[in-house]
Amino acid sequence: SAVSIEKEIPETERPNTFLRESDDHDSSTSSSSSSSSSTVRSRFEKMIREAQDTVCKAIEGADGGAKFKEDVWSRPGGGGGISRVLQDGAVWEKAGVNVSVVYGVMPPEAYRAASATAELKPGPVPFFAAGISSVLHPKNPFAPTLHFNYRYFETDAPKDAPGSPRQWWFGGGTDLTPAYIFEEDVMHFHSVQKSACDKFDPTFYPRFKKWCDDYFYIKHRGERRGLGGIFFDDLNDYDQEMLLSFATECANSVVPAYIPIIEKRKDTPFTDQHKAWQQLRRGRYVEFNLVYDRGTTFGLKTGGRIESILVSLPLTARWEYDHKPENGTEEWKLLDACINPKEWI
Amino acid sequence: SAVSIEKEIPETERPNTFLRESDDHDSSTSSSSSSSSSTVRSRFEKMIREAQDTVCKAIEGADGGAKFKEDVWSRPGGGGGISRVLQDGAVWEKAGVNVSVVYGVMPPEAYRAASATAELKPGPVPFFAAGISSVLHPKNPFAPTLHFNYRYFETDAPKDAPGSPRQWWFGGGTDLTPAYIFEEDVMHFHSVQKSACDKFDPTFYPRFKKWCDDYFYIKHRGERRGLGGIFFDDLNDYDQEMLLSFATECANSVVPAYIPIIEKRKDTPFTDQHKAWQQLRRGRYVEFNLVYDRGTTFGLKTGGRIESILVSLPLTARWEYDHKPENGTEEWKLLDACINPKEWI
Repeated sequence: SAVSIEKEIPETERPNTFLRESDDHDSSTSSSSSSSSSTVRSRFEKMIREAQDTVCKAIEGADGGAKFKEDVWSRPGGGGGISRVLQDGAVWEKAGVNVSVVYGVMPPEAYRAASATAELKPGPVPFFAAGISSVLHPKNPFAPTLHFNYRYFETDAPKDAPGSPRQWWFGGGTDLTPAYIFEEDVMHFHSVQKSACDKFDPTFYPRFKKWCDDYFYIKHRGERRGLGGIFFDDLNDYDQEMLLSFATECANSVVPAYIPIIEKRKDTPFTDQHKAWQQLRRGRYVEFNLVYDRGTTFGLKTGGRIESILVSLPLTARWEYDHKPENGTEEWKLLDACINPKEWI
Repeated sequence: SAVSIEKEIPETERPNTFLRESDDHDSSTSSSSSSSSSTVRSRFEKMIREAQDTVCKAIEGADGGAKFKEDVWSRPGGGGGISRVLQDGAVWEKAGVNVSVVYGVMPPEAYRAASATAELKPGPVPFFAAGISSVLHPKNPFAPTLHFNYRYFETDAPKDAPGSPRQWWFGGGTDLTPAYIFEEDVMHFHSVQKSACDKFDPTFYPRFKKWCDDYFYIKHRGERRGLGGIFFDDLNDYDQEMLLSFATECANSVVPAYIPIIEKRKDTPFTDQHKAWQQLRRGRYVEFNLVYDRGTTFGLKTGGRIESILVSLPLTARWEYDHKPENGTEEWKLLDACINPKEWI
């Protein structure tokens, strides 16, 4: 495959950092506008590990009994991750919150090099990628699934062109996938996303809301997997410090955006029909993740840690032949909003 | 996308043929060694429609109550299909048996043209594809899932190179996916496949058995989805009449290969643990079909009839984080045979 990474090894303890030693004191950015003495790599790792702790604590609190199981792993050449999964809780049937730090090498074709250096024909480009990724699938069909992912990507200077600039970008987003629409829940969720965006740039929310609707599109169905949120990728046309703060703000918004909805819906009585519809929507979730999701398909092809990648799949899912909800039903309303994305605020 | 086909239209009645009129009297093959006055296209369509009837009748008989629901569809420019689905029967939770006849156009790069014509730079190449495709998922975890598919593919002569030869090939196979191994069942199944192969060529069974093991490989898991059977593709290096007979023999072998196993296992008592393991294996089935299966990924990308394509997915499936059966258990034995394919006869 185009990008290759080494096999992971289980670890018994969480290290202080998954970064290679040289990454902590990065002379190449010392002359930049950085407000901190440590690198963006290092501050991003710290941020996602804190976010993992915060989200897991909030999930365990709302679940009221179940605990996350933790797997720590590393790779021989540097990098590693912490996978946390809570399965068969009182509220969530499967909740995964993973952080990973990956060092790899990509072929020059895949490297979005500055145009000035493109004619140099560089060799393989070493890269660094760190991210937090989470999917939370509740049991109750009225309680929505949440997904969020924030990642930072950087290339090293190619060895045969040491003077060429490093590339970096941020990506991520938070999106909501209910089986039934409660307008107040969806409005609350989108409002929190908008507030996080508005602290940085008034164009962010409308732009990233649309990007989210476009990204989570199940093309062969003509429908989105859920009701969206925000999504952005390859973001580097803003100040690096500003984007680090923005990603941090987004990650910190996960708990206030999601947990109040869960508290409201987790004990709502439901029927077998409600559950079957939730399961059909979970089937769509599986279709999106296995067929279209870039992180999943990239991970499966490049030998990432399979159990961490596929923890995004629901515990159970369902496919009925030619199922079509009757016009005007609650199921139809959800499907309609997945086909025709709405403005919620 | 590279290959495009028109949107399908529901029909109220089964037509006698889905072939375009001109296909029934094909002057270009009148000088060939054909033993019949009608074309291979026409005889292949007749064969798969008869096989559909036979298999559906056998399934309804073994299920003992449930009936297939039929959808007939056509495309404006010719072609169409018959989709039959039995859902929530006594024995099968989902059984789909589809035939389709498709006319399309592919870009010249995709056309496996005879090397002599390759330098002519032909325009888009019209093609014809007909096939029967079926997946049968029983309820009982001791009763195996069966898949079979037989297809015939032909290109028209390109318009700007009317003298160039038509290409044709056959593909298909029948494979078994149990959640638990009963050696006698697997041996019976493979013996029937071998008998069908041996009537034509002693090299067929060993070659197509291995091809099957190689094809149904879930690369990111390092395991096959089931215990195999036979599989072949792009077969055209034998006499066309012989391959048509071979495909017919294979399709006729489905009922004797499968139904006796179902009769034996459909009422075996089982526990929730057996059911959960079956559901985990169904999850693997979904992974294979959505990530690797050529027919599925091709169909999803080219605008095929989605409900017919995805009828192969099980009614329900399950994904547990990092599930590993204990060494020596029945679940472990199945997984081991999926990781290390065995010779069953």
